[in-house]
Amino acid sequence: NGRVHLDNWSFLEEDPGVNYLETGDPNQDPQDRWDFRRIRLTWSGDVPGSMLYRISIDFNNPSSAEMKDVYLGFKDLPYNQQFLIGNQKRPIGLDHLNSSRHNVFIERPLAVETFNEDARRLGACMYGYNDSESVHWRYGAFLLENISQDGRFRGDYDEAGLYGRLSTSPWYDEISGGRGYYHFAVAGSANTTDADGTIDNDDNSNEARFRTRPLARSSSRWWDTGRLLGAETYQQLAFESMLNIGAFQLTGEYINTWVQRNPLGGFNGEDLHFQGAYLFANYFLTGEHVPLKRRTGTIDRVKPFENFFIVDRCCGGTGTGWGALSVGVRADYLDLSDSDIMGGEGHAITLSSNWYWTAYSKLQTNLVVGEIEDAGQGRSNVPLAQGVAGDFTILGFRYMIDF
Amino acid sequence: NGRVHLDNWSFLEEDPGVNYLETGDPNQDPQDRWDFRRIRLTWSGDVPGSMLYRISIDFNNPSSAEMKDVYLGFKDLPYNQQFLIGNQKRPIGLDHLNSSRHNVFIERPLAVETFNEDARRLGACMYGYNDSESVHWRYGAFLLENISQDGRFRGDYDEAGLYGRLSTSPWYDEISGGRGYYHFAVAGSANTTDADGTIDNDDNSNEARFRTRPLARSSSRWWDTGRLLGAETYQQLAFESMLNIGAFQLTGEYINTWVQRNPLGGFNGEDLHFQGAYLFANYFLTGEHVPLKRRTGTIDRVKPFENFFIVDRCCGGTGTGWGALSVGVRADYLDLSDSDIMGGEGHAITLSSNWYWTAYSKLQTNLVVGEIEDAGQGRSNVPLAQGVAGDFTILGFRYMIDF
Amino acid sequence: NGRVHLDNWSFLEEDPGVNYLETGDPNQDPQDRWDFRRIRLTWSGDVPGSMLYRISIDFNNPSSAEMKDVYLGFKDLPYNQQFLIGNQKRPIGLDHLNSSRHNVFIERPLAVETFNEDARRLGACMYGYNDSESVHWRYGAFLLENISQDGRFRGDYDEAGLYGRLSTSPWYDEISGGRGYYHFAVAGSANTTDADGTIDNDDNSNEARFRTRPLARSSSRWWDTGRLLGAETYQQLAFESMLNIGAFQLTGEYINTWVQRNPLGGFNGEDLHFQGAYLFANYFLTGEHVPLKRRTGTIDRVKPFENFFIVDRCCGGTGTGWGALSVGVRADYLDLSDSDIMGGEGHAITLSSNWYWTAYSKLQTNLVVGEIEDAGQGRSNVPLAQGVAGDFTILGFRYMIDF
Repeated sequence: NGRVHLDNWSFLEEDPGVNYLETGDPNQDPQDRWDFRRIRLTWSGDVPGSMLYRISIDFNNPSSAEMKDVYLGFKDLPYNQQFLIGNQKRPIGLDHLNSSRHNVFIERPLAVETFNEDARRLGACMYGYNDSESVHWRYGAFLLENISQDGRFRGDYDEAGLYGRLSTSPWYDEISGGRGYYHFAVAGSANTTDADGTIDNDDNSNEARFRTRPLARSSSRWWDTGRLLGAETYQQLAFESMLNIGAFQLTGEYINTWVQRNPLGGFNGEDLHFQGAYLFANYFLTGEHVPLKRRTGTIDRVKPFENFFIVDRCCGGTGTGWGALSVGVRADYLDLSDSDIMGGEGHAITLSSNWYWTAYSKLQTNLVVGEIEDAGQGRSNVPLAQGVAGDFTILGFRYMIDF
Repeated sequence: NGRVHLDNWSFLEEDPGVNYLETGDPNQDPQDRWDFRRIRLTWSGDVPGSMLYRISIDFNNPSSAEMKDVYLGFKDLPYNQQFLIGNQKRPIGLDHLNSSRHNVFIERPLAVETFNEDARRLGACMYGYNDSESVHWRYGAFLLENISQDGRFRGDYDEAGLYGRLSTSPWYDEISGGRGYYHFAVAGSANTTDADGTIDNDDNSNEARFRTRPLARSSSRWWDTGRLLGAETYQQLAFESMLNIGAFQLTGEYINTWVQRNPLGGFNGEDLHFQGAYLFANYFLTGEHVPLKRRTGTIDRVKPFENFFIVDRCCGGTGTGWGALSVGVRADYLDLSDSDIMGGEGHAITLSSNWYWTAYSKLQTNLVVGEIEDAGQGRSNVPLAQGVAGDFTILGFRYMIDF
Repeated sequence: NGRVHLDNWSFLEEDPGVNYLETGDPNQDPQDRWDFRRIRLTWSGDVPGSMLYRISIDFNNPSSAEMKDVYLGFKDLPYNQQFLIGNQKRPIGLDHLNSSRHNVFIERPLAVETFNEDARRLGACMYGYNDSESVHWRYGAFLLENISQDGRFRGDYDEAGLYGRLSTSPWYDEISGGRGYYHFAVAGSANTTDADGTIDNDDNSNEARFRTRPLARSSSRWWDTGRLLGAETYQQLAFESMLNIGAFQLTGEYINTWVQRNPLGGFNGEDLHFQGAYLFANYFLTGEHVPLKRRTGTIDRVKPFENFFIVDRCCGGTGTGWGALSVGVRADYLDLSDSDIMGGEGHAITLSSNWYWTAYSKLQTNLVVGEIEDAGQGRSNVPLAQGVAGDFTILGFRYMIDF
């Protein structure tokens, strides 16, 4: 199967500080754009015996494809478990574990993208759930380097982390087919990084770096700590909450990251604390709901009551269907500025509507209004005397289909 | 499904002027070559509801793949229409709308390649036909930048065009199964380009550029206007004619392009008129014919009366079949030299034979003899005092299969 | 169908000479690594009529994919023959003709990799077998340049070779289902190369170059003659022997290469003789055997008597299966040092175990202990006064599945 996501982004208003974060030049503003965000093909299945495989390649940039899920694994293990070896998502951030086919907003929240950049890493992970499906767990070990471009990890220093997530759905209304539920989860990680990896001459770069784009597909990441010189270890703790009452959903997450480091390269070596959170409300004007997949603790495919179509009737005239429509609002907060690191602190409001043509296709519209301050560390490898700041307004559309 | 096209080109004779156009050095001649011209895989289908998708990726250069058709769309619209959003062919040039699986000659005509380079652009286009299938139309809006390599369009200036094509088949002999037909079409476009796009510092380059290879897969494009400095708008008008009488076919097209420009960078700013045409005759010695697909106004798959095979008979001896054979000749003309632009003026004769092994595979042979003069603009960004000229003879073979 | 091979290599011990061969710096040792060695997808089939196709693309480095088998061909030819045109394996080296899905050791033997680097080339080749399947042959012509990265061969000088292989299985125990057999084959080639290809300015580089990695996926090839300046022709002669008695197998090959050259660039122009060989024993502790595919003279898929699984029984408790287990040892020898060429001479012992989880998946473990001397030509384009030498110990794991 596969998916096509075609995006159109317009950068409506930006301050010089934002121009600098995007282009390195306060006078040059972000360019408007049309991007194939995803052209993804997936091959998955079982082999005779109780094993499975999955290969997923994304051709959004055809001349330089990326791997997504690429793993082999064992299924039917005791306690409804399966064990996967290969490139797969690290369990931090509900909205990263949700498929991009189902995300309610075009791009994932600031905190989720920042603290689990690109989500997938090479690792081994166990997935399971209890017989009543009220509890799901996943835990594993992952290398920290992102190998989605080149498929290879090189280096004598194993920058790696242990990750775990425990999710529950204490309320799940079976009778209505899951139109009412409450999901709660806690996730965490403990990671070790190569403190001098960025400046010594082994093949490792320091993987303690946290960064994200402004909820839109800009060229640069505006929030960006840079690679944290001297960072040796970091830990994460995250909380997820999702309440669904029929057509209405209220979802939030809060993620912390603590970094321990040594003084190096002019940086003072103080411990760091970064954090981010979001809260969104979404409502279906046409009455559908966002289903929960209890076995994995993630959301599932929305099925419109009526598809979108315009057809000639055999007996004359035109028959039409209008699909489903939801509207939403999201508040994002992200603070990557602490001690002498100016990774950016800011917030954004996103207004959204999703027009579901079918269960497999929709048009998403997002208007993002935000501000960022104390930023710019990503464009410097020495401590900054002063951060940059600015406001921004961005409008985006996504045309999407999956099959 | 997919296709494999393997090409072998020998550059038999060239003048120094042609050497310069190919390599930049009058003393270095074009290199002979074997190319995988296409290694293309396509995934297409419908999703539940009345929508469709298509993803087509070409791995002819595996380390740097290209996207071809990548779109999603709505089908079953009134008046037998479908509406597609994504990367798709712009409706200029019959032989570009014909699939490369079915093209009668190895490479498409000079005029068709020049005035609709690489054919596919990001756009939205409506396709339809009348109930008797005697009329087909398609019209839409397209961005002008070719994003087949990187999947992304960047720039604040939307270089775009409106395109339309209306085709008819007033004569179509149903009784013989379409062995006799006449197809006629008119197509046009109106485009706006970024006049100073090539020299200012936004991300747009001026997309007013017309160029093509010499009916063979050379490394450089010998006809080439370069990016036309100061060009602001251009329009196109094209005519198609295709007459089929049993095993015989006579096909021609004539395409005009008018460019409006300002004086810039030493160029005089006069309006430009470029034009090109071709006429070919093709005949099946074995009696088959080239079918017409009336709903899209393009040619369809040739079905040999007998496949090619050599097999042992069960009762001893060898059974053989010899496939189908057609021969053809094409005359090409292209004039990209006007005012102070020396894009090249020239013509070529192509002798061809197609040996159809099966309906899905064949061997194509082309001998191209041509000349070009007033050329060289593509290797200079200032007006030329004098163009270069030369003759050439090229021999090509294509081994092809599709499935 | 497809395959995923995920490798983990640790370079346990190396001498400074080996560090130099790997990194160019005697003080910098090889980096440990995790590589997706293969993420391969294959599309193959027949078209109506008696033709076939195969497209195989490997995404192990997703941003720079490679083509593997890409061909079209004719089947059902007299004498059980088929004729393929396109990118396919040259018939030198049994263990190269064996699929990487079935290789008994993680990486192929030194001699096989060296004298048929990457195996596949653009060519035309006939494949056949006699009616009793006791004899298999393949012969064809191939271009020498490896086009797996870019899909194109450029150059006026056709560096090419004629290749042939004749294999027999005089003993094949039908009654036990092929648990006992003896396979023997002889293969050879005659090649012409562009003597000054590396220093003149046509597009050809001299393809007379022999090199290989140290039975592990290092970054550099430690045995390496470099491109042999002045080399005009080379010939190869290879012998294969494979004896299988139930769970036990004894396999060996011996390959010679003779190079004729002119004096050029400081090299003396004397004829060269390179050679390599290996011998391995493999034994299934669980009693399975390695099957022979007589029609192609290669090994086939091992089918474990019991799959690996751990499942909850419906009636309580846990059911388990443990898969199949084989152990092996291989001795490799390779001499690429002759006259004034110091390509490296050395040997290695590989201890191996294969844990078959299913017929389609297994874990391979290899411990390689070896030494190399008179090496370093690959890092120099003038004759060396003295070669480098060193010992090495490497540990590798491969997690693999195919479908």
